[in-house]
Amino acid sequence: MRLSLTPSNDPDDYSFVHPIRTRFAETDAMGIIHHSAYVPYLEDARAALFRHRGYPYDEVRAAGIDFAVLEVHVRYCRPLRFDEVVDVHVTLGDLTRTTFQVGYLLTVADETRATAVTVHAAVDARGRGQRMPRWLGALVEPSA
Amino acid sequence: MRLSLTPSNDPDDYSFVHPIRTRFAETDAMGIIHHSAYVPYLEDARAALFRHRGYPYDEVRAAGIDFAVLEVHVRYCRPLRFDEVVDVHVTLGDLTRTTFQVGYLLTVADETRATAVTVHAAVDARGRGQRMPRWLGALVEPSA
Amino acid sequence: MRLSLTPSNDPDDYSFVHPIRTRFAETDAMGIIHHSAYVPYLEDARAALFRHRGYPYDEVRAAGIDFAVLEVHVRYCRPLRFDEVVDVHVTLGDLTRTTFQVGYLLTVADETRATAVTVHAAVDARGRGQRMPRWLGALVEPSA
Amino acid sequence: MRLSLTPSNDPDDYSFVHPIRTRFAETDAMGIIHHSAYVPYLEDARAALFRHRGYPYDEVRAAGIDFAVLEVHVRYCRPLRFDEVVDVHVTLGDLTRTTFQVGYLLTVADETRATAVTVHAAVDARGRGQRMPRWLGALVEPSA
Repeated sequence: MRLSLTPSNDPDDYSFVHPIRTRFAETDAMGIIHHSAYVPYLEDARAALFRHRGYPYDEVRAAGIDFAVLEVHVRYCRPLRFDEVVDVHVTLGDLTRTTFQVGYLLTVADETRATAVTVHAAVDARGRGQRMPRWLGALVEPSA
Repeated sequence: MRLSLTPSNDPDDYSFVHPIRTRFAETDAMGIIHHSAYVPYLEDARAALFRHRGYPYDEVRAAGIDFAVLEVHVRYCRPLRFDEVVDVHVTLGDLTRTTFQVGYLLTVADETRATAVTVHAAVDARGRGQRMPRWLGALVEPSA
Repeated sequence: MRLSLTPSNDPDDYSFVHPIRTRFAETDAMGIIHHSAYVPYLEDARAALFRHRGYPYDEVRAAGIDFAVLEVHVRYCRPLRFDEVVDVHVTLGDLTRTTFQVGYLLTVADETRATAVTVHAAVDARGRGQRMPRWLGALVEPSA
Repeated sequence: MRLSLTPSNDPDDYSFVHPIRTRFAETDAMGIIHHSAYVPYLEDARAALFRHRGYPYDEVRAAGIDFAVLEVHVRYCRPLRFDEVVDVHVTLGDLTRTTFQVGYLLTVADETRATAVTVHAAVDARGRGQRMPRWLGALVEPSA
């Protein structure tokens, strides 16, 4: 288990936030957003952060790099419901020569709904490990 | 609209059937299987038919052909529920030089739940139109 | 087949548009957005139209009405790709005493990518047919 | 973080296995099964174990109990590809008065592809904590 980053419950510890409105297709028979739907939310917010910082994910991929997902950990605090707007706070941290981690805090109107961490490696189009691109270092929060 | 095939409500009109158990992740807040979940069921049953007839879809793709989806039409008759085993009856028909159509009947214990039609074209890996492979003709039902 | 509405290819024929950014989770091994992902896009745009007109779908549901999906028809013109912003143009039409239809035009930078139609009935929480609520009439385009 | 169970890499440590064939709809533009698709696989295998042991999940729910998901952790070892049959090995463990954990090993032809753990609580239909049903104790592996 490479997972080492501990996501903060304080939105102020995150420098980027990406709002996502939940979809009815993502609800389940318990009347809440199904727990598997959170994983694409994380990816969506991660891609938004890269786009915002000047590295749109399709350009990163066009340059021959994919960020493979090595681990995902989600902790569900309170359910999300249909038509809620979730603020997904994102921060990059725990950069090593081969991996980096992303921490997430999901809130609705400042109430914590979930936290999450994903661990990533840089790979080429065939899935082989690559050196982490230099520009990534600049995206990592000093405090994270 | 290329859609021309009319799917029969009689399972006997189909020579192939693929059973699929519904997943909890596919339910929605109405307590039923969400209508978008049916589209992967169709694809799954279509792939099973190709595999059964000796043309696994990954081999078809490795040979340079993808069957792009041009149209999808689903008619929902009665809802599907969690943990039901759906018999997806499949038949190929309406083959032209550039397209073919697939008809579907979804039943649970012989009760019709939905019918569907998909229209397909052969394309290469870059999405450009290809001649329909000859072997496909042998898979088309004479009566369909 | 109740499907009767023909969706226009002209954005000007639609009074409402809802932008959706495609997600990487929605891509498939052909490198494009998987055809099943369009169905939640339609639902998302439909819910946005109801919200915009003053009838948020969760309030409609809380009032005891669900709009069951009877039919879905999607016509795929050109593929959608990851990170594109799709303008989903929506219009309501073909209202009868028991059903209404919704037409969709999906464009990216004014290029048509897909059109679609969904057919709906009003049902209660147990799935039984309900009278169509009166307010729906006001949402139907005269020209649609 | 309640996560405490460490999933074994040895299939012999699991008393139940549920095979799942991957779907094309679950692939992504990297040509592999998207990492979010694993979460429904886990749920599917979990439901199969409960069904196999005489507690079908729809009966459990009808009796007023839902097993809410508190945490999910997935570790991706080697990618899954389209049309592979994944053996999802499952074991229940770490039962407390309010939670239990489920460990998973995903293999294809005995090669490890992923491991995972989920943490669950018993809740009623409104999401309030419930006492863990007694029968669950009998499903927990002594060694797990």
